[in-house]
Amino acid sequence: MVDILHRIGVTSSPEAVYAALATIDGLAGWWTEDTEGDSEVGGVIRFRFGPGGFDMKVLEAEAAERVLWEVAGGPEEWIGTRVRFELGQEEGYTIVLFRHEGWREPVEFMYHCNTKWATFLLSPKKLVETGKGDPAPHDVKISNWP
Amino acid sequence: MVDILHRIGVTSSPEAVYAALATIDGLAGWWTEDTEGDSEVGGVIRFRFGPGGFDMKVLEAEAAERVLWEVAGGPEEWIGTRVRFELGQEEGYTIVLFRHEGWREPVEFMYHCNTKWATFLLSPKKLVETGKGDPAPHDVKISNWP
Repeated sequence: MVDILHRIGVTSSPEAVYAALATIDGLAGWWTEDTEGDSEVGGVIRFRFGPGGFDMKVLEAEAAERVLWEVAGGPEEWIGTRVRFELGQEEGYTIVLFRHEGWREPVEFMYHCNTKWATFLLSPKKLVETGKGDPAPHDVKISNWP
Repeated sequence: MVDILHRIGVTSSPEAVYAALATIDGLAGWWTEDTEGDSEVGGVIRFRFGPGGFDMKVLEAEAAERVLWEVAGGPEEWIGTRVRFELGQEEGYTIVLFRHEGWREPVEFMYHCNTKWATFLLSPKKLVETGKGDPAPHDVKISNWP
């Protein structure tokens, strides 16, 4: 099992960062504009990106602390993996520790997703700090892969 | 042992990408302006970033194909780890598969370095495609950590 790990610091409150991670409007403001569903625990959020997308089942949503999703739909390599955001505070920053856990193998698609997650995670930082993120289809293109 | 994995595609030739990864001028154009040393196999390259930096021993340098460094100086967590760039071609892109191999534990500093590597790896892409990268001290700030 292999995990993707990232750390970002946002110069805003944990409550503001949590709103970006745990509400449909917040998520549509940084990951993909085409976001629908139910972001409460037990709900499913549908994220769409042109040709494909991900369905995330919400396992945990603890205000200003933690969000945990399980991937219920999407690329075969993602099914059953989990996406976790843990919030903390340090030196006036809200720190986001991100994990995309449980990849079975470090396939080339995982290399791509790791780089792509980093570019996407700068987007909630920008959204919360400036009011405007870079959700798909306005996301950073990093290669021939979407 | 844990590895950091990234994938970037550059719309330029493998030779141009290799020059950015395997020459002192190329490296100073995207990672840190304060780069000195010997980038030939057996040499040591010194990268400095304000307070700290890294000394990389060059283990392999295969034109338009591969660069491999071993970390000889820097943060304790980095000593003995290896940094690998493998080049390939796909659909008119030069694909860079990047690995920072051999972390002993997935400590929080590794989360940070993973995100930071992603932002840095967009810099040789930009350097080769446009003629200008974003080396330190012009790098993207992602948190309270440098």
